[in-house]
Amino acid sequence: MGAAKRGRRGRRREALESSVSQQSNHPVSGANYRAPVNPYPPIEILSEDQLNSIHEASLKVIEETGMRILYDEGREIFRQAGAEVNDETMMVKIDRGLLMESVAKAPSKIELEYRNPERNNAIGKGHVVFSAVGGAPNVSDIDNGKRPGTLEDFKNFLKLSQSFDIVHMVGGAPEPIDIDTSIRHLLVTQADVTLTDKFPHVYARGQGSIDDALEIIRIANGVTNEQFRQNVYCNTVVNTNSPLQLDVPMTQGIVEFAKAGQLTIITPFTLSGAMAPVTISGALVLQNLEALVGIALAQIVRPGAPVAYGGFTSNVDMKSGSPAFGTPEYTKAAFASGQLARFYNVPWRSSNVNASNAPDAQSAYESEMALWGALMGGANLIKHGAGWLEGGLTASYEKYIIDIEIMQMFAEVFHPFTVTVEDLALEAIKDVGPGGHFFGTQHTMERYKTAFYDPLVSDWQNYGSWTEGGSKDSAQRANAIYKQILNDYVQPQMDQARIDEIQQYVDRRTREGGVQML
Amino acid sequence: MGAAKRGRRGRRREALESSVSQQSNHPVSGANYRAPVNPYPPIEILSEDQLNSIHEASLKVIEETGMRILYDEGREIFRQAGAEVNDETMMVKIDRGLLMESVAKAPSKIELEYRNPERNNAIGKGHVVFSAVGGAPNVSDIDNGKRPGTLEDFKNFLKLSQSFDIVHMVGGAPEPIDIDTSIRHLLVTQADVTLTDKFPHVYARGQGSIDDALEIIRIANGVTNEQFRQNVYCNTVVNTNSPLQLDVPMTQGIVEFAKAGQLTIITPFTLSGAMAPVTISGALVLQNLEALVGIALAQIVRPGAPVAYGGFTSNVDMKSGSPAFGTPEYTKAAFASGQLARFYNVPWRSSNVNASNAPDAQSAYESEMALWGALMGGANLIKHGAGWLEGGLTASYEKYIIDIEIMQMFAEVFHPFTVTVEDLALEAIKDVGPGGHFFGTQHTMERYKTAFYDPLVSDWQNYGSWTEGGSKDSAQRANAIYKQILNDYVQPQMDQARIDEIQQYVDRRTREGGVQML
Repeated sequence: MGAAKRGRRGRRREALESSVSQQSNHPVSGANYRAPVNPYPPIEILSEDQLNSIHEASLKVIEETGMRILYDEGREIFRQAGAEVNDETMMVKIDRGLLMESVAKAPSKIELEYRNPERNNAIGKGHVVFSAVGGAPNVSDIDNGKRPGTLEDFKNFLKLSQSFDIVHMVGGAPEPIDIDTSIRHLLVTQADVTLTDKFPHVYARGQGSIDDALEIIRIANGVTNEQFRQNVYCNTVVNTNSPLQLDVPMTQGIVEFAKAGQLTIITPFTLSGAMAPVTISGALVLQNLEALVGIALAQIVRPGAPVAYGGFTSNVDMKSGSPAFGTPEYTKAAFASGQLARFYNVPWRSSNVNASNAPDAQSAYESEMALWGALMGGANLIKHGAGWLEGGLTASYEKYIIDIEIMQMFAEVFHPFTVTVEDLALEAIKDVGPGGHFFGTQHTMERYKTAFYDPLVSDWQNYGSWTEGGSKDSAQRANAIYKQILNDYVQPQMDQARIDEIQQYVDRRTREGGVQML
Repeated sequence: MGAAKRGRRGRRREALESSVSQQSNHPVSGANYRAPVNPYPPIEILSEDQLNSIHEASLKVIEETGMRILYDEGREIFRQAGAEVNDETMMVKIDRGLLMESVAKAPSKIELEYRNPERNNAIGKGHVVFSAVGGAPNVSDIDNGKRPGTLEDFKNFLKLSQSFDIVHMVGGAPEPIDIDTSIRHLLVTQADVTLTDKFPHVYARGQGSIDDALEIIRIANGVTNEQFRQNVYCNTVVNTNSPLQLDVPMTQGIVEFAKAGQLTIITPFTLSGAMAPVTISGALVLQNLEALVGIALAQIVRPGAPVAYGGFTSNVDMKSGSPAFGTPEYTKAAFASGQLARFYNVPWRSSNVNASNAPDAQSAYESEMALWGALMGGANLIKHGAGWLEGGLTASYEKYIIDIEIMQMFAEVFHPFTVTVEDLALEAIKDVGPGGHFFGTQHTMERYKTAFYDPLVSDWQNYGSWTEGGSKDSAQRANAIYKQILNDYVQPQMDQARIDEIQQYVDRRTREGGVQML
């Protein structure tokens, strides 16, 4: 066919020169990148008895040992609800009746509202949402290596996220270290909502910064305070301070987000062998009980508050203490975490993680082990979907692009092929006959343009063409692609009135000195 | 703990200096690398109706169009059994009664006999076996790039295969191009059985070379002709010449291996869009019908002959015609192929494949997409498990080592964690308390040495230590590891009498001129 004559290189260059982002925003296969739904029943690693053992053990610790909650209001909420609270030790013990009654109020599926309603999707019940990397203080690319994140880098990652439909949520990384912490949340949230029309992320770093961020997001969505409280427009991640502890900003995050009706993802950071027991079962008990306490708190504050069960159980290298991600233990803990979240009938959040220092084969196979564990385990929300490197200390431009490819491939795997009479191709098989080929047949010509996933990074040239083109490996190709995507970036539309109102808010709060960070 | 003080680099160097192979041959976690069993129920992508549609379409083509079989004896066997054979067109049409009656005689599980009985394992019914790369005419490493394979390279790959328990079958690559084809099979098989005690692979390249290879393998196992026929000591792969064709050596391979009671893996090479329809369903129909004809032939020759259903359906880049592997279409076709093989109650062979030209992130994520499709689809035999690169044109030393890591990780994922009272760690969680850590606890000390998978290639050092160590990516680390493994290689024991008998056989057949290759 005609297109074949141009060859892979010609096509690649052409694609890069015109619009890679357009290409990737429109899957040729018909797969749904905006609202992927996983059609496969989840893999289960725990028997019913084993699941029950972890559940029972979790309740036992919550009842007998309890969790230390450093935020006075958090303890007071539990006390009012009937929990046993000791203000001296700050320990909160919750009986199973109160705990499970509260957890049962959490919704099993959460509809997400975007400022661009064409992007609306959901988490829970098979719906899967991908987020960009969060939490990383550093940024890297293969040109300049690793350095502290800046607001410019932060904005670049937003532009990348805006350019790919498979990224549904902004991540919050790299951290713009060049901006003072008193006003960082203002500029970050302003950038989130103006440079993208994706689902915003808010760090739970104290009351003042949460209030500012929610207000900016409310303005961006053009809704009243009352409307804002009735729908889910943004999310925060609460990492419990494992073991058995919730600090002030994290507890405040749960309370404030529940009050505002916004999504809290409660993710215990249970590294087996360090902050959690060296056994996967023991680490899961700790993860589970900490998640349950957080979920219960949100439900006591506001019954039906949108929450997700976060599973992050991984292991450390027991010889060096280094954290590891995308290990076999991580995969198995992911399968189990999915079962636990479904046992409590809440959406489950997992991650795309690895511990590599470079966007190399290790980064890819660890990411794949994490993602398959998550997605075949039935995860509904994948944090750090694109760009996480070095155990989360760095947001990598090249890994971002490689991860887009991987996430798009999952969306394609979720998109089943059809088995109609025409698909079965009996006439074509008969016509082509023994030893023939299908290239030029009508059956092929009618379908070839949309038959297969069209890759972003993968290079399928033969070795000769590849070496002629400079023997570029996937990291080098990803480097060129991220620059082209930034070059092609188009800012999504927003009413000028909202843009101005956000700017005025940011200016005023900046003049007021922003917030005193904890 | 004491070991932590040495740090990752110290440990890595020490491990490399002493014996990486020993480390890898003994999984610390207790996972079974020698005879892995997949505990997970397979993922199913086809509904019962869809499965039936593909089955029915396959039978229809076999009945109405048939398959062209170039080998006279092959057609004669089908004719004797009652098939409709046309010697002019060489077409063989088989009615569904004869076909399904024959396929039903194939065993669902096959016990594999090794010359070292400690390695005995099986394929089918959850049992999984991994093979090294086969078929590649070239070899590569990052020092010297790509070049034609030599006998020395071939032997090196055998030495690597001998050094890792997770490799169960030798692969047959790279092809030793420096050895004349008349005697190549002699030297190759001699090397297979003397440099390893793994399961040997034989190329189906005509009667004479098959006879020679089986005789050398028989001698190596120290069994009589009669004993050899009663157990399974080696395997061959038969790629049908898609579409709808079986050439002389391939058909002869099926016939001779069935007669000898040895394992034939019948793998149609159905690249969707090229040798197979552009629809995955259509490609699966072609794959399925070709596999069924091959399986039926083996069962007619010898009822109960050991066979596996090979699935290799992938797609091409429709713009360049380049084959692609580890694509989303490949993953989905793998899930479906597993269902088809189980429908016929025969073991299923899949592969670890990718189309990258370098041992980079692409090679890893494509391999993972292929392996997860295969293993979560219930595959029993993974060909090209270690070392395949560049769409199978090259056997890569570095990819071999990276693949060992990946396969070991799968064996670990297959090894479920336990959920005993001690595993649940309630005492440890209580003792450590809020904000503590588990590093020094008795619960940890008793278990840390065997708690987690100990990686071969993955580097979990922090960025500073990693850059101090030269910023080596996973391909560079794999390069150092493969050299160390070759350096540490220990030849497995064999009775001197057998060694001599094999040498005498090879010498005699060489003097006789070997075989005239087809």
